[in-house]
Amino acid sequence: MLQDKNEYKTPISKLGEFKLIEHLTQNFKIKHSESIYSIGDDSAVIKSSKNTVISTDTLTEAIHFDLAYFPLKHLGYKAVVVGLSDIIAMNAVPKQIMISIAVSNRFPVEALEDIYSGIHVACEKYNVDLIGGDTTASKLGLVITVTSIGEVDEKEIVYRKGANPTDLLVTTGDLGGAFMGLKVLQRENVTFQSNPNFQPDLSGYEYIVQKQLKPELRVDIQKIFSELEVKPTAMIDISDGLSSELLHLSKQSNVGFNLYEEKLPIDNQTITVADEFNLNPSTAVLNGGEDYELLFTLPMSDYEKIRNHLDFTVIGHATENSGANYLVARGSSQLIPITAQGWTNEKNESDNLEN
Amino acid sequence: MLQDKNEYKTPISKLGEFKLIEHLTQNFKIKHSESIYSIGDDSAVIKSSKNTVISTDTLTEAIHFDLAYFPLKHLGYKAVVVGLSDIIAMNAVPKQIMISIAVSNRFPVEALEDIYSGIHVACEKYNVDLIGGDTTASKLGLVITVTSIGEVDEKEIVYRKGANPTDLLVTTGDLGGAFMGLKVLQRENVTFQSNPNFQPDLSGYEYIVQKQLKPELRVDIQKIFSELEVKPTAMIDISDGLSSELLHLSKQSNVGFNLYEEKLPIDNQTITVADEFNLNPSTAVLNGGEDYELLFTLPMSDYEKIRNHLDFTVIGHATENSGANYLVARGSSQLIPITAQGWTNEKNESDNLEN
Repeated sequence: MLQDKNEYKTPISKLGEFKLIEHLTQNFKIKHSESIYSIGDDSAVIKSSKNTVISTDTLTEAIHFDLAYFPLKHLGYKAVVVGLSDIIAMNAVPKQIMISIAVSNRFPVEALEDIYSGIHVACEKYNVDLIGGDTTASKLGLVITVTSIGEVDEKEIVYRKGANPTDLLVTTGDLGGAFMGLKVLQRENVTFQSNPNFQPDLSGYEYIVQKQLKPELRVDIQKIFSELEVKPTAMIDISDGLSSELLHLSKQSNVGFNLYEEKLPIDNQTITVADEFNLNPSTAVLNGGEDYELLFTLPMSDYEKIRNHLDFTVIGHATENSGANYLVARGSSQLIPITAQGWTNEKNESDNLEN
Repeated sequence: MLQDKNEYKTPISKLGEFKLIEHLTQNFKIKHSESIYSIGDDSAVIKSSKNTVISTDTLTEAIHFDLAYFPLKHLGYKAVVVGLSDIIAMNAVPKQIMISIAVSNRFPVEALEDIYSGIHVACEKYNVDLIGGDTTASKLGLVITVTSIGEVDEKEIVYRKGANPTDLLVTTGDLGGAFMGLKVLQRENVTFQSNPNFQPDLSGYEYIVQKQLKPELRVDIQKIFSELEVKPTAMIDISDGLSSELLHLSKQSNVGFNLYEEKLPIDNQTITVADEFNLNPSTAVLNGGEDYELLFTLPMSDYEKIRNHLDFTVIGHATENSGANYLVARGSSQLIPITAQGWTNEKNESDNLEN
């Protein structure tokens, strides 16, 4: 829908696997001395005097992205962001990534070039080295697995498990936008599928569509923590929706949380579009996902240090009631239990909240 | 064909993603002090005083395995071997793995239990820690990505690039068996598909079927090198077939190779079955793949040290003719150029050799 595929024509078989990898990665330069050996051997070699943090994420076609409206270059960029966000969430500095792509023969070389071009932009922007990967055939569509690597001093690591009762619950940025952006893209695509002459009009939706197609990594967070002289007691990135992430912190820190609906930071465009879809914006925040903001806890004594920071919002606090997590509803002070969403394939967007 | 699926019935959605991961990984224990934090946070944390080697491999259904004849437990086991083989090929010691699985809803929980049970057996056998991973939905079958991690002193690393002209070319074990095992399994499966009452009979094929379904990792190699007091100048694992691996060594070391057909170590069962399939056994060795043996080079002066080792076979030597790689045909001394195979989807098994 959003890309012209007419120029896509070189079959992968023309290059073969090994020349293909060489071709796709030729513009990537190594930036870090910790990356001792990158692409071209059985393994990459790295060396760090600090602790190494490692994470993997798999993105599969038709689940995590739909190529009908997700441009391949954006997909490459987003794969890097999704991967590195797990490194940031440990309070570590991203250094390297490895990309494994399984791809069917229906993808020509030019499609892979687009994906790698997005990967390249993200690697440059976030100062990470592409040190390896794997490109294999698939009879079943496109699957991208990102292995993300970073480093951090042991004493600086922030786990999910360190939140204390009475800690403040804080989020960066605004939430729910990526989910509403997805809804808009899906709607335009449905219209396009039934009428190929239809020209999708995304004006008025730019912010949320950008949040979905080109999320940004919170690489700025460590500098902000340092400037404010705070260190989170627990932290997680918001990839699956706020409910799910909050439950992770709750479980692993052995605390409960009260979350205040009226405090949720939601952009005006997200609210307007949620209304268009007859959806409660809070539902987009709680169950939507893909915001790639950070959710963290701080001692209550840090409140004065962070209260005026424009990018931080205190949205609740921890309690001693381990495992008891509630949304305090706007206006009514009603306590609504927060339940798991995540990957159940049974998402019901009005399970917990009524519009 | 080889497994009873009647007892497979619990839908993944019953557990949900997070409980599923907990359930599947509950029996895995951490064995290494270098594995500081494993499953359950945004990233795993490791710490090594040596260099860290990292590799990823993706196995996709219908390309790397066919579930009609590949038991899931074996698949889990093999995924670990495939991954760790890249660590061994750097002369490093495997320490950790991460497993990402994308799986469609047609797979019940019990199927994933089988895969993880195979992963568990391999982790225990090869003394590695499962430190993380990702389990995601797929609309497109089963895809497994293994991220393998090991450590090695910088001076002990063996790259592909260090071979010198006149070096000996050596392989471990015997070759071509995994490929012929695959051929047998595929043949039995075709018969089974056309007659579901057919009982596959694998007697007489045990060795090669085992090579395909349950390859073993050459974790013994470092001890052998140490005992023989040798260190390879270059090394690679044989995953894609001997031709392809030899061409990698040739390219990256800037040498050529002469490979002697009559020296190729081939098991009798492999030869017999190749004959059954009207195939030259050397073709199975050169183009087959999945042997997971090691191909390495040694200075000619090491010949006396290794010549009597039962598991090593000198199969050729490097030359100064960079990029010129030949098979010296059995009996005739005819030089046949060795060309790339790998992933071209255009494999022609009699391209280079006639039966």
